[in-house]
Amino acid sequence: MSRASGRIRLGMVGGGEGGFIGAVHRYAARIDDQFELVAGALSSNPEKALRSGLALGLAADRIYADYRDMARAESARPDGIEAVSIVTPNHLHAPVARAFLDAGIHVICDKPVTTTSADARALCELVRKNGLLFAVTHNYSANAMVRQARQMVQEGQLGELRVVQVEYVQDWLAEPIELDGQKQAAWRTDPAQSGGGAIGDIGSHAWQLADFITGLDIESLCAELSSLVPGRRIDDNVQVMLRYANGARGSLWASQVAPGHGNDLSIRVYGSKGGLHWRQEQPDVLHWTPLGEPTRLISRNGAGTLPAAARLARIPGGHPEGYLEAFGNLYREIAASLFARRPGSVPADPAAEFPDVEDGLRGVQFIEAVQASSRAGGVWLKPGEPG
Amino acid sequence: MSRASGRIRLGMVGGGEGGFIGAVHRYAARIDDQFELVAGALSSNPEKALRSGLALGLAADRIYADYRDMARAESARPDGIEAVSIVTPNHLHAPVARAFLDAGIHVICDKPVTTTSADARALCELVRKNGLLFAVTHNYSANAMVRQARQMVQEGQLGELRVVQVEYVQDWLAEPIELDGQKQAAWRTDPAQSGGGAIGDIGSHAWQLADFITGLDIESLCAELSSLVPGRRIDDNVQVMLRYANGARGSLWASQVAPGHGNDLSIRVYGSKGGLHWRQEQPDVLHWTPLGEPTRLISRNGAGTLPAAARLARIPGGHPEGYLEAFGNLYREIAASLFARRPGSVPADPAAEFPDVEDGLRGVQFIEAVQASSRAGGVWLKPGEPG
Amino acid sequence: MSRASGRIRLGMVGGGEGGFIGAVHRYAARIDDQFELVAGALSSNPEKALRSGLALGLAADRIYADYRDMARAESARPDGIEAVSIVTPNHLHAPVARAFLDAGIHVICDKPVTTTSADARALCELVRKNGLLFAVTHNYSANAMVRQARQMVQEGQLGELRVVQVEYVQDWLAEPIELDGQKQAAWRTDPAQSGGGAIGDIGSHAWQLADFITGLDIESLCAELSSLVPGRRIDDNVQVMLRYANGARGSLWASQVAPGHGNDLSIRVYGSKGGLHWRQEQPDVLHWTPLGEPTRLISRNGAGTLPAAARLARIPGGHPEGYLEAFGNLYREIAASLFARRPGSVPADPAAEFPDVEDGLRGVQFIEAVQASSRAGGVWLKPGEPG
Amino acid sequence: MSRASGRIRLGMVGGGEGGFIGAVHRYAARIDDQFELVAGALSSNPEKALRSGLALGLAADRIYADYRDMARAESARPDGIEAVSIVTPNHLHAPVARAFLDAGIHVICDKPVTTTSADARALCELVRKNGLLFAVTHNYSANAMVRQARQMVQEGQLGELRVVQVEYVQDWLAEPIELDGQKQAAWRTDPAQSGGGAIGDIGSHAWQLADFITGLDIESLCAELSSLVPGRRIDDNVQVMLRYANGARGSLWASQVAPGHGNDLSIRVYGSKGGLHWRQEQPDVLHWTPLGEPTRLISRNGAGTLPAAARLARIPGGHPEGYLEAFGNLYREIAASLFARRPGSVPADPAAEFPDVEDGLRGVQFIEAVQASSRAGGVWLKPGEPG
Repeated sequence: MSRASGRIRLGMVGGGEGGFIGAVHRYAARIDDQFELVAGALSSNPEKALRSGLALGLAADRIYADYRDMARAESARPDGIEAVSIVTPNHLHAPVARAFLDAGIHVICDKPVTTTSADARALCELVRKNGLLFAVTHNYSANAMVRQARQMVQEGQLGELRVVQVEYVQDWLAEPIELDGQKQAAWRTDPAQSGGGAIGDIGSHAWQLADFITGLDIESLCAELSSLVPGRRIDDNVQVMLRYANGARGSLWASQVAPGHGNDLSIRVYGSKGGLHWRQEQPDVLHWTPLGEPTRLISRNGAGTLPAAARLARIPGGHPEGYLEAFGNLYREIAASLFARRPGSVPADPAAEFPDVEDGLRGVQFIEAVQASSRAGGVWLKPGEPG
Repeated sequence: MSRASGRIRLGMVGGGEGGFIGAVHRYAARIDDQFELVAGALSSNPEKALRSGLALGLAADRIYADYRDMARAESARPDGIEAVSIVTPNHLHAPVARAFLDAGIHVICDKPVTTTSADARALCELVRKNGLLFAVTHNYSANAMVRQARQMVQEGQLGELRVVQVEYVQDWLAEPIELDGQKQAAWRTDPAQSGGGAIGDIGSHAWQLADFITGLDIESLCAELSSLVPGRRIDDNVQVMLRYANGARGSLWASQVAPGHGNDLSIRVYGSKGGLHWRQEQPDVLHWTPLGEPTRLISRNGAGTLPAAARLARIPGGHPEGYLEAFGNLYREIAASLFARRPGSVPADPAAEFPDVEDGLRGVQFIEAVQASSRAGGVWLKPGEPG
Repeated sequence: MSRASGRIRLGMVGGGEGGFIGAVHRYAARIDDQFELVAGALSSNPEKALRSGLALGLAADRIYADYRDMARAESARPDGIEAVSIVTPNHLHAPVARAFLDAGIHVICDKPVTTTSADARALCELVRKNGLLFAVTHNYSANAMVRQARQMVQEGQLGELRVVQVEYVQDWLAEPIELDGQKQAAWRTDPAQSGGGAIGDIGSHAWQLADFITGLDIESLCAELSSLVPGRRIDDNVQVMLRYANGARGSLWASQVAPGHGNDLSIRVYGSKGGLHWRQEQPDVLHWTPLGEPTRLISRNGAGTLPAAARLARIPGGHPEGYLEAFGNLYREIAASLFARRPGSVPADPAAEFPDVEDGLRGVQFIEAVQASSRAGGVWLKPGEPG
Repeated sequence: MSRASGRIRLGMVGGGEGGFIGAVHRYAARIDDQFELVAGALSSNPEKALRSGLALGLAADRIYADYRDMARAESARPDGIEAVSIVTPNHLHAPVARAFLDAGIHVICDKPVTTTSADARALCELVRKNGLLFAVTHNYSANAMVRQARQMVQEGQLGELRVVQVEYVQDWLAEPIELDGQKQAAWRTDPAQSGGGAIGDIGSHAWQLADFITGLDIESLCAELSSLVPGRRIDDNVQVMLRYANGARGSLWASQVAPGHGNDLSIRVYGSKGGLHWRQEQPDVLHWTPLGEPTRLISRNGAGTLPAAARLARIPGGHPEGYLEAFGNLYREIAASLFARRPGSVPADPAAEFPDVEDGLRGVQFIEAVQASSRAGGVWLKPGEPG
């Protein structure tokens, strides 16, 4: 840790009172004491923005109702924010990110990075030009045991990869609660605000988890998006078959209508030498079966933990770390990079890593390919190519 | 039970020494003491047939080297077999079944019932004409808790069905052991003998389990068969996306190359009112989540067991029943029907049920549709229609 | 297997219609086709004895109402039974066993072998004198993975043993169902018939499981028997602290009043080099943690299965075997010994083993020590010594 | 939350670099942003105290090498600390607590509150007199699902309580690592510093968890402390049998030498109407079996969550919360009470609760009774009475 010169000065756009993901980002930023939230445009409603900001202890003059004002004002202050966390509905990610990048402020953006690949490509170009940090908070990839899985794949412990099964299963939209005004449900099931239903909300997490652990390129995919709840305006169930470039096969399932599941993200990866299983609802355990040997339960900070996992663990094995700790890991990785960008700083831990805007672009391309395949009746398409 | 007039006289074709599934059928027939194995053509090799028969305590004059001789001779004896169990490699199911049906002998046939739907259709016609019993041993459907799941679906406890996820995962073919002469692997990976690799061997079980529990018709499917082990001549990994006629969506995965899995058949069914999960490696527990309530663990013979399950349980809850008991359940159901066909018998328990030759035909049609879809590069097809 | 000269001719005392454990013994004897039930005194009620015997297909002249008649008659027949299974309430085990031993017939007796150690000692002396086989059906010790655990301990894989935690937990007596005439509950909670409540019924199984796996001698114990259900005449909850002769410590808990448990027998054994966990409700998996390494899931017939376990498995890994198969293992081990005693036979597999009358005596001594300790208010006693 | 007038100003004694529990307290204090660490005597070694304080961002003039100086200086500052967290080795808890209480500063103390009940009684008297807050950080009682369990017991959902089984199992001391200078092991296995081995370190957590959930009084106990690792100077294995005043029976096991366990604290509570099971390694799930019904899995923030649990949850069900969140819950409860003590504050949420010094005294009395019983060879004693 390198906070000798003070914690990272952080701003936030979105995340006003009643929101979920904004609060999560604040927990994540706080847990390791490397960020200090000092400014925010927490709501586009000025009153709510003010009330939310005061409740969080922000100074009144750093509470903004418009993110453009915030970008301008903060970039002009000597003690202005160094980075901004963007936790608005998806369709606002692109304009907000652009405003802060233009103001020379680093960006931490929730996923999916944008609602169109055109927007994402534009952000990529901007970042390539101005060299700012742009992190996309695919938080699950920062679980210690996900890092363990990735390192095991990279080291060849699984051999040649053959099959990938990833799923993210929920039940909170099993009834049409958006019709009753449930706020989370309302914007997430509104095509205009979300840019995708289950595929954008949780399917993109599933894609990223598989992408992060396996590093495999998708050669083509065949997808089916469905709206299984009567009256729903957007997909609430996603099925995708995957052909990977190395010959492996995969399957992705995301659903918001499967009673019995809270946030049941899980992945199974099989190779010629062994198989892995990880599940976010029990994140501290990785099931690992070397071919021809008994299954092992590798636990966070327990025997067999590799450096990629061990460097992220805070507490002894058997004491569970959870969702907030994983999200906090991501902020810690980002902090390492931000500290290193301060003048005169030592370089960041080379092992630190987080999804960036290019990963974000690939995620949006994946979403678009799934949507295009499904619209065409379930045909095989390659992500990133015109459908 | 109605064995007052003596146990069912049973013959067997296939199942000589060293075989797996023949022994399983014998366990299943024996466990409830309702069958007596009295004749067999256990191998096409006469010496092996004799040796195998004697080891099983068969009388020498009822050990045959040729199943046609057996059908002829047994049908001519006053104490001849009433039913035959067919446990040969798949490609022989059709001719053997026909021989015994022609001889007026009931048939219990392993799955898939034939290797072509044309053969299966022919058997269906024969059975429709002669009225004999023809059971296909999709044993998993006879697990008590699978019956529980089926009854819950039928009673509407799940509401309208929306999603079905079924899989059968193994690892025994993760290496090309057929090249080393492993007997089970050799015939099962030989296209000429098996009529299908993973799809025929285990995919058909997965299909039947979903079919049995949900009762849903498949409107169309899109499939990908793969041979992931270098040098393999047949599919060892199966992916299928399913569109059901009621609008539900499904996914089927079968693999023989996934390290960490023995015989990991599992199914998850979700409806508008709740979700179910069953797994054959822990068959006595059914996970049931009524929407908006905590998940329940319904256990065999425990609280909440419905009649469809309770009638199959032999021992108190908490004492595990396993694979052989489930297979035995199927034989018990078949026995009930066979006893009822004896002159002067009381009718069989109307709750008794087992897959018959029509189910077998549908299973072969499913396999063929999967194969046709995959050959065409993964297109959507309807089972039972020309590909 | 050595049934060339025919299956073992078996009789049964107790086990008439409606009983549980008699049916279990019959399943166990039948599953591997090495016994043939040919005679029985299934009930002391002549009508019920006859009806039960006919339902099982016994010849009318080999259905007895009095076990003494049966012992006499069968020992006089050239085709008389070779062994008898005793499945009566506990207080009858001793006189029945004596009658058959006196008639030169081998004995397979349910546990506890007697209700007093004096009776058990007398049976030991009789057996030592006449050399007959006397097996006690502590069935759990015949689970494949229990044998695995035993072999691992014997090989020193756990190092010096330090802690043993064993428990058998049920909930079927959480209400005073004996007052409503439930038959199983009635005799098992009647001190005169059972010779002990939870301690005799399930505590003795827990003791034997620990004894079998660890081989440790009990130096002393401190026990508390409780009747937690108002109106119960016998213990329904057992707590025991154990000091082993090698310095290890142990704890035994048996309860019939713990809602949520069916037949939840489990054992954990810890040594200086590793720890084991086995649970009968999921009997095919053994959890094994070598100190300083990840926990392994060793599964029946899967990787890492030792010979002691592999020799008992019938079907491939992942296909669950259950309670009846384990009970059947015991009968198979007994059969091996009985076949070997036939004139001209080959010796039995030296790996075959089953609890005998001496083990049974030690079990009764354990029960008596627990009862004596508890009666004295929870003092430390050594089993086998006057309390 | 009521931090309008600023976060609680917190100090810390102990918890210098390399320590475990100090860092945990800081996470816990930080997670909900209600405390600000502003002073510390983090080590009795002045250099280390300074280095540790600076690394945590403390002002140099509020870094102390002696806790007495700190108590004096802070109580004299207008912006002095309002509360102190004591995270030293156990034998220092009493003098440190007294120093801060005497200075009018609230105390948050790790457990066990002292190493002798005389010391604890003295602290109780002091607190009764001066009315300061004294919290003891039995963190497990602040897990949301532990609160759920407690409310269920209090509401009578379990009926009359009959059996309590609690255990805390670890393996980190399975080898004599204290001989190699492992710091945590060194002081925890030193009788002079810890005041008890496994019983003080983890046995006291197990006791408190049972105490908190059940509210039962211990009528007497019989205990056995053992040092199972050769050369160990203190107990590493604890067995206790418990008689509760209402007639219930219990058992407590704590071990540091059981390979395969990290921090495996679990409790099972059974009553006349149902049974509960909770395990800290999977803290978000409570197993609940109403007698005669299937077991339910109640999950944090899922269906069936009672107010006592729901008020502590931060994030949606399915997103795991862990050890730090539970510890943070305790700090949040303490904060509520501290805010309410500020002049002009609104009263604290009446549902807020945390173990106080009286609970701490009872914990020490439990430890002493266990030690006395064991020393006397395992006799029955009542906690709080002379042994």
